[in-house]
Amino acid sequence: MAKEVTKRQENYSQWYNNLVVKADLADNSAVRGCMVIKPYGYAIWEKMRDQLDKMFKETGHQNAYFPLFIPKSFMSKEASHVEGFAKECAVVTHYRLKNAPDGKGIVVDEDAKLEEELIVRPTSETIIWNTYKNWIRSYRDLPVLVNQWANVVRWEMRTRLFLRTAEFLWQEGHTAHATEAEAIDETELIINLYAEFAEKYMALPVFKGRKTESERFAGAVDTYCIEAMMQDGKALQSGTSHFLGQNFAKAFDVKFASKEGSLEYVWATSWGVSTRLMGALIMAHSDDNGLVLPPRLAPVHVVIVPIFQTTEQLTQLTEKIIPLKKELENKGLTVKYDNRDTLKPGFKFAEHELKGIPIRIAMGPRDVENSTIEIARRDTLEKKTYPMEGITETIVALLDEIQENIYNKALQFRQNNTYTTDSYQEFKEILDKGGFVLSHWDGTSETEERIKEETKATIRCIPFEADGEKGKCILTGKPSNQRVLFARAY
Amino acid sequence: MAKEVTKRQENYSQWYNNLVVKADLADNSAVRGCMVIKPYGYAIWEKMRDQLDKMFKETGHQNAYFPLFIPKSFMSKEASHVEGFAKECAVVTHYRLKNAPDGKGIVVDEDAKLEEELIVRPTSETIIWNTYKNWIRSYRDLPVLVNQWANVVRWEMRTRLFLRTAEFLWQEGHTAHATEAEAIDETELIINLYAEFAEKYMALPVFKGRKTESERFAGAVDTYCIEAMMQDGKALQSGTSHFLGQNFAKAFDVKFASKEGSLEYVWATSWGVSTRLMGALIMAHSDDNGLVLPPRLAPVHVVIVPIFQTTEQLTQLTEKIIPLKKELENKGLTVKYDNRDTLKPGFKFAEHELKGIPIRIAMGPRDVENSTIEIARRDTLEKKTYPMEGITETIVALLDEIQENIYNKALQFRQNNTYTTDSYQEFKEILDKGGFVLSHWDGTSETEERIKEETKATIRCIPFEADGEKGKCILTGKPSNQRVLFARAY
Repeated sequence: MAKEVTKRQENYSQWYNNLVVKADLADNSAVRGCMVIKPYGYAIWEKMRDQLDKMFKETGHQNAYFPLFIPKSFMSKEASHVEGFAKECAVVTHYRLKNAPDGKGIVVDEDAKLEEELIVRPTSETIIWNTYKNWIRSYRDLPVLVNQWANVVRWEMRTRLFLRTAEFLWQEGHTAHATEAEAIDETELIINLYAEFAEKYMALPVFKGRKTESERFAGAVDTYCIEAMMQDGKALQSGTSHFLGQNFAKAFDVKFASKEGSLEYVWATSWGVSTRLMGALIMAHSDDNGLVLPPRLAPVHVVIVPIFQTTEQLTQLTEKIIPLKKELENKGLTVKYDNRDTLKPGFKFAEHELKGIPIRIAMGPRDVENSTIEIARRDTLEKKTYPMEGITETIVALLDEIQENIYNKALQFRQNNTYTTDSYQEFKEILDKGGFVLSHWDGTSETEERIKEETKATIRCIPFEADGEKGKCILTGKPSNQRVLFARAY
Repeated sequence: MAKEVTKRQENYSQWYNNLVVKADLADNSAVRGCMVIKPYGYAIWEKMRDQLDKMFKETGHQNAYFPLFIPKSFMSKEASHVEGFAKECAVVTHYRLKNAPDGKGIVVDEDAKLEEELIVRPTSETIIWNTYKNWIRSYRDLPVLVNQWANVVRWEMRTRLFLRTAEFLWQEGHTAHATEAEAIDETELIINLYAEFAEKYMALPVFKGRKTESERFAGAVDTYCIEAMMQDGKALQSGTSHFLGQNFAKAFDVKFASKEGSLEYVWATSWGVSTRLMGALIMAHSDDNGLVLPPRLAPVHVVIVPIFQTTEQLTQLTEKIIPLKKELENKGLTVKYDNRDTLKPGFKFAEHELKGIPIRIAMGPRDVENSTIEIARRDTLEKKTYPMEGITETIVALLDEIQENIYNKALQFRQNNTYTTDSYQEFKEILDKGGFVLSHWDGTSETEERIKEETKATIRCIPFEADGEKGKCILTGKPSNQRVLFARAY
């Protein structure tokens, strides 16, 4: 089973595609560009969603739900938004089908044409701000701190499971504030929340910063982002938080009576992460044996495999294993007892490695005699024999250690592959090899565009943590105030 | 605020529409027939969803996610399914928009016409069974016990918030089994699970039974349902579980190798409940003052209102209230401290009644002196003063009592309005007054249809709990083996 996964060194891209399918995470569907998220993949997404949802609620946000469809005219209301979003969309034009005149199948009923076409939401700013117009009258109605978990559709031409699909699942936060400062605070709060989630739960170190004008969200005044490094040295944008200024309030005429009695436009933010995070999680940590999951997002923490020849041995082992399983479950862990009697242990081990289960326990008759068990760590593939005494504490501690180790490994990898250079020649060499480059840039879209054309690298972000070091643009030599982060990206 | 809600006696239908909007549960959107679920309404839906999800998982089901779109040709594959579903659907015909030639807004790009139109899922049997074809090879792959939480679209002409909307949220379970008996067991397991959920959590007594042929799900061999009584004596179908036989397996050619080595078609079920349950919850329990929520589904269990004249009094009250709030929260309750200083207590009380918060606590300076608090129950509107000592236990017990009382009240109401009759004249009088009627029926679709035409009542279900009493059809006088449940319905 596991051996069918392509090696990373051979073909990183194929390794990823292979792994997603073999580990039962997702599959392509009969509908072009749309994926089926399989139960194991969905269980990981649920863990991500539940944790993020908890963090949103702890910071005062509430969930709501807005329509799937957006009237076509809404998309044109915010001038730059339409440029960025209205083009590659699924368009609903009719609301009825009828039996084909020739009796074969069904056809669109031309009499049931919509007066105004509906767009399947690619993002919901327009329909939401059209709704907020009815919700917001006075400063007492502010802030509005709303999030939505939903599906969205963008008609992508080249799709890849989780990374870029026509339909994907996401959350989109849409907040409304009385002041510019409050809206900017919210934008920052969320990018920090995303970074914390990535680091603590996904075990994924990220760079935080702002996007350049050309990479900004369509309709935003400022876009903050988190950027993570994959094992091929490419960047994956893992979350964005947008300060929208008063753009959408003006487009949808959303004003509020201030404390002082004046009528003001509302300030806005929007922010989102999607099932793309699944792609980041898989690509950042996994290896040639399969998935490597950080324990905090693993649907199964521990799998127990009995090693037996006879039915009697299995019965004897089960008597020891069931209480152990219960003890571990009492600690809040999810434990699977893999007692299938038609498969060899070696086959099971490969399968559990492929699925990325953080800890595998093997127990045989000899272990029963000695009161020991064998533990295999998925992250390091190390095996070690432990005494049964105090084993639950050992395992709980080990899971924390694994979580930390996966993070540190990713951080180490990123450090080893992040370079600082002032030479354009070296800059290009690094990108060809794979990695992030911190270099100076003159701040113009022209230079950014030329570098992209020549190297396929984009400015991933202007990091928040700038060292204040002034220098000269790597391409033009013009003055620059800080280094920015360049990389090729997914 | 609360006084703006229409009285039930005046106009039950308007009372409902009014309440949904005034209590901040949902609102109509700019898109015909699509609703916005507001944060308070969504919080109730989340409670329902989380509890159902827990119950599905406890019975061995897993979540997954399938595409929003269904190729048009899939809908025709199962002959009776297409008749029931393919007609009133949102149809995607194009995948791109472009700037209008006159520079005003955007238009559909006629060059981007899909080769095959896509239907926005009205239900997912077809796309899912097309997927199961790849998942199922052998008896070892069975059963498949999968559920999906998703949005679906049915182009309804007359819509009402929660009860009938073009887009709604739901869960749809789709299971595959090796034997007919197993699939029937699953269909029963789920209808019992739904009934348990309705009764224990929604405090809603339900009739369980099977649908007649004409009311069956399009493509099912048998449809089981739960039916609840609203306060106007009408029925609301609250959940269905379908035994699909081998219909979809045959339509999508899904076979498995049995233990004995033969190739067999798979047996199937599907089942679902939707945001329609919100409508049932609201209509079954609420009164002229607003919502009445069973504590197990209430987003806020307890609200505490300080009664004060001066800022000093408020400070003094807050000192007592904060520890009480924490104590209650430690019991797992959600507690709101309503210390807004711009609103009078009476206004707050009316608002909390409108929102259906089960317990309201009022505390004034006199209470501090006497170590007492005043508790108002939302279900009975009774107020009573309690000593502070042991107050958390009092409140926890009171919430259980409220949950039980709401259920008993609904059960009593149903009992008072469910009749047994053999007279067609009386049958019609009961339906005009409002209520359920248990009467004999000859088992034919013709009679069912005639009764529907003459009385607007349908057979809600053939109850599982039949008394075995034989009789004569209420319309035709032909023989009948058991009484069936008639009612007008939502």
